[in-house]
Amino acid sequence: MFRTAELGRKVSKEEFEAVAPQLRTELTQLQQRLRAAKFPVILVFAGVDGAGKGESINLLNEWMDPRWMETHAYGPPSDEERERPDSWRYWRDLPARGRIGLFLRSWYSTPVLDHANSRISDAELDERLSHITRFEKMLADDGALILKFWMHLGRDAQKKRLKKLEKDPTESWRVTKQDWKNWEMYDQFTTAAERTIQVTSAGHAPWTIIEGQDDRYRSLTLLVTLRDAITRHLEAMDLKRRVAETMRREEQRRLKDEAGEHKAEDHKAAGTEKTAHGVAGAGAVHGSSLVMATLPQQPTILNALDMTLDYSDEDYAERLKVARARLHNLSRLARDRGVSSALVFEGWDAAGKGGAIRRLTAGLDARDYKVIPIAAPTDEEKAQHYLWRFWRHISRAGRATIYDRSWYGRVLVERIEGYASTEEWMRAYGEINDFEEQLVDSGRVLCKFWLHITKEEQMARFEERQSIPWKAWKLTEEDWRNREKWDVYEQAVNDMIERTSTRKTPWTLVEANSKKHARVKVLETYCAALEARLGQ
Amino acid sequence: MFRTAELGRKVSKEEFEAVAPQLRTELTQLQQRLRAAKFPVILVFAGVDGAGKGESINLLNEWMDPRWMETHAYGPPSDEERERPDSWRYWRDLPARGRIGLFLRSWYSTPVLDHANSRISDAELDERLSHITRFEKMLADDGALILKFWMHLGRDAQKKRLKKLEKDPTESWRVTKQDWKNWEMYDQFTTAAERTIQVTSAGHAPWTIIEGQDDRYRSLTLLVTLRDAITRHLEAMDLKRRVAETMRREEQRRLKDEAGEHKAEDHKAAGTEKTAHGVAGAGAVHGSSLVMATLPQQPTILNALDMTLDYSDEDYAERLKVARARLHNLSRLARDRGVSSALVFEGWDAAGKGGAIRRLTAGLDARDYKVIPIAAPTDEEKAQHYLWRFWRHISRAGRATIYDRSWYGRVLVERIEGYASTEEWMRAYGEINDFEEQLVDSGRVLCKFWLHITKEEQMARFEERQSIPWKAWKLTEEDWRNREKWDVYEQAVNDMIERTSTRKTPWTLVEANSKKHARVKVLETYCAALEARLGQ
Repeated sequence: MFRTAELGRKVSKEEFEAVAPQLRTELTQLQQRLRAAKFPVILVFAGVDGAGKGESINLLNEWMDPRWMETHAYGPPSDEERERPDSWRYWRDLPARGRIGLFLRSWYSTPVLDHANSRISDAELDERLSHITRFEKMLADDGALILKFWMHLGRDAQKKRLKKLEKDPTESWRVTKQDWKNWEMYDQFTTAAERTIQVTSAGHAPWTIIEGQDDRYRSLTLLVTLRDAITRHLEAMDLKRRVAETMRREEQRRLKDEAGEHKAEDHKAAGTEKTAHGVAGAGAVHGSSLVMATLPQQPTILNALDMTLDYSDEDYAERLKVARARLHNLSRLARDRGVSSALVFEGWDAAGKGGAIRRLTAGLDARDYKVIPIAAPTDEEKAQHYLWRFWRHISRAGRATIYDRSWYGRVLVERIEGYASTEEWMRAYGEINDFEEQLVDSGRVLCKFWLHITKEEQMARFEERQSIPWKAWKLTEEDWRNREKWDVYEQAVNDMIERTSTRKTPWTLVEANSKKHARVKVLETYCAALEARLGQ
Repeated sequence: MFRTAELGRKVSKEEFEAVAPQLRTELTQLQQRLRAAKFPVILVFAGVDGAGKGESINLLNEWMDPRWMETHAYGPPSDEERERPDSWRYWRDLPARGRIGLFLRSWYSTPVLDHANSRISDAELDERLSHITRFEKMLADDGALILKFWMHLGRDAQKKRLKKLEKDPTESWRVTKQDWKNWEMYDQFTTAAERTIQVTSAGHAPWTIIEGQDDRYRSLTLLVTLRDAITRHLEAMDLKRRVAETMRREEQRRLKDEAGEHKAEDHKAAGTEKTAHGVAGAGAVHGSSLVMATLPQQPTILNALDMTLDYSDEDYAERLKVARARLHNLSRLARDRGVSSALVFEGWDAAGKGGAIRRLTAGLDARDYKVIPIAAPTDEEKAQHYLWRFWRHISRAGRATIYDRSWYGRVLVERIEGYASTEEWMRAYGEINDFEEQLVDSGRVLCKFWLHITKEEQMARFEERQSIPWKAWKLTEEDWRNREKWDVYEQAVNDMIERTSTRKTPWTLVEANSKKHARVKVLETYCAALEARLGQ
């Protein structure tokens, strides 16, 4: 989950200054609109020590009008607070409609730290998180805009950061003994955080994970996210108001109709009025969007891969042979013990999914596996929830199901082509996590492979396909169209990994410019997963 | 929670036959509309053995077209099912869009029985329920209409029912040894059920509790609930479609405007079209609502009260004296131990809330309590979530807060006067339960009193107020208006008790036609609650 926030993303001083003034203007303008709006904004800041939570809050207070903004940070509860239910301290600090509340060491702090320090079990963590979910849902139902930011640093980056702060006399006060203690608990802490973010990220209160190493990158990402979310929420509220108005008018007209008072003139007048209003509303919403400041393009998790990885023919043959023998034994043991597998293959067009699958199945007994190619859903599948078609293919005990493309289509092609609405693909991350968790909790081995090739490599393969008659059928118009959307796909893949790669259900990114390397990595990864599960 | 389903509600044969044919027609017509609709209907049946779950399912299969309806009941998992994640069996049976699925012994069965048999803890129950909530939310997000019916019988009624079935040779097969075993676990079973219903009742998947003793009452309630829910869902989907269309048109117009192609004629044409469509849509939706079959009026939980309860002056004076002395001691002990109280007073106008509160506070030290009269919210309160004004008054340790009217205004006056939308007051039950649970979990004593008087008694008191000059100020125009809405208020009170009276946070219904009886009952109830909390 956090790997996408350990990429060393940064923004240069020039890039920052090219965007910052405009962004600041946009934010202060939004704050003015907010004051008249009928909802509060609740911003939660959490994350790794030294990743810039405090700096972010200071920045917001500096950039925006602090008269309409309140900052709350929580330490150990006071006498007053201890005498009331735990959430009393948060209730009394909730911002009123039209205002922004910034919350540091908020309701997330205790559950995460308690779990990291083994003071509470997994089940207890989940229970506390479900209280939080209900709390936030209640506020969101009441109209609140809730945004949660996780400021992240990798383990080594955190160490570096703390050391750097300690050295600087003006900053050293920021680093306490507790910070170092926390750093030693890094893995426990991020495990608890991962679970927390996964369970409490909802459409009405999403988490945004921000890499905290570079101040300018962190600040710009925060501010752009904030601006976009406030804009969308204002639009949504505006839409809601307009819909209510339209419906009210329709209802009045219906009543009139029933009373037989319907006249042709009403039609015309009402129609004009409605249209005029629609235009005005739309103008207000869209007017500013044409000139919005944007974040400089950032590397994705895919850029961090070493695409030169390869094997000599000799090494390849040897490793393949060894891995296949290993797989053969492991898969028989798995069948005997009733341990099933689900293998997911996703990747760019021409990344070599089919070839990798065939090299894998060559090590398996044909009775023990099934390859499910995921194409357009059938009529029967379309009449069900999108996950239904995957549930139906779950194998019996001891078998492997290999998905050539999968449920991730929801957050890739369906997202990009607009087959799924924003709301639909956004909530799909959580639905998919729930689904995969059930697979793993029922004892299944789950491997998810993203086969990655560079854009140049794809072009080379496309051209090869074009020129070889028996491969030409593989290349379609759609492949070329997809290629044009490379950048948006890359962003979608990055988001997918961020949201659905968890300790329980990790993604394996496969460097596949070399088919040899890809095939070996897939085989060896699956073998290792089987071994871990079978205790071999 | 279940007291409202132990009132002996029934429908006579004549009443049933007066309504049944029409209701049946309505349901079959709805089923035809459903087939073309783009969502499935999921009906879950659970409840006490013998309360008519099976009969209800048979009735639906008889009344509606079984070709578009599937029934699924689950026993111990098959080999096939054991080899997959637990929810696989439910996934494969989910109805397709346009179809109805009936689920018996569904995903609720195992958690409730496991908890009743102490195989899982409270926290584990909550964890399983949160999985269910996510599962249902996912289906509802996808458009599914989910309704859950809890068929209920009181402990004695269940015994009677099982005996009666056993005696009937044609029905005796229905009663198994397991049923009797379950009966012995009645209290554990309903405790688990109460928690389950409370936690999993959501706007997108509500529970309906139905008293199961009388076949005709049970059947009619089920069918009317089903008809209304399907109608509402069809309307909501229709509304959604129309909103999307309107928005799409607005967007097109905006684009045209921007391109400078805007023409006056477009306005007119679009306006007429829109209006015509609105009328057609509204007609289809509302056409049938004028003649809908209705359920014969039923008693509420308030009718079950013995309104003749009273004390002689002598008994009253004695009991009041004793209770006050008891309260005085208890409240000092509570203060010393830091045990706080929250006392909620609700009731009809002129039911004597003020008098009861004064008799109570006479036994308390003025420094230890605060009476909060709940009138219209202040500006500051209006700018917050509706529960905020109650959170702010939560007392410090060892104090009592007495609410003269309370957060229940949300589901009473705000519901009836339309200040809160249906969606808002429906979800308020869950929000209030969460709120009160936090009060109790933090060690607070919570007493909730509904002061009940009959409609005749209210009239007598209104008239008395009118005739006595120093009481006349108490009687307002609003009191008379509220009185006219007695029946809807009574239904709202019944729903409120059903949804918010739990083992942890029970309501006390106070028979208040006699002020003496009411005052004593309030005092003694609070004393008993304090004693229980203080271990006296």
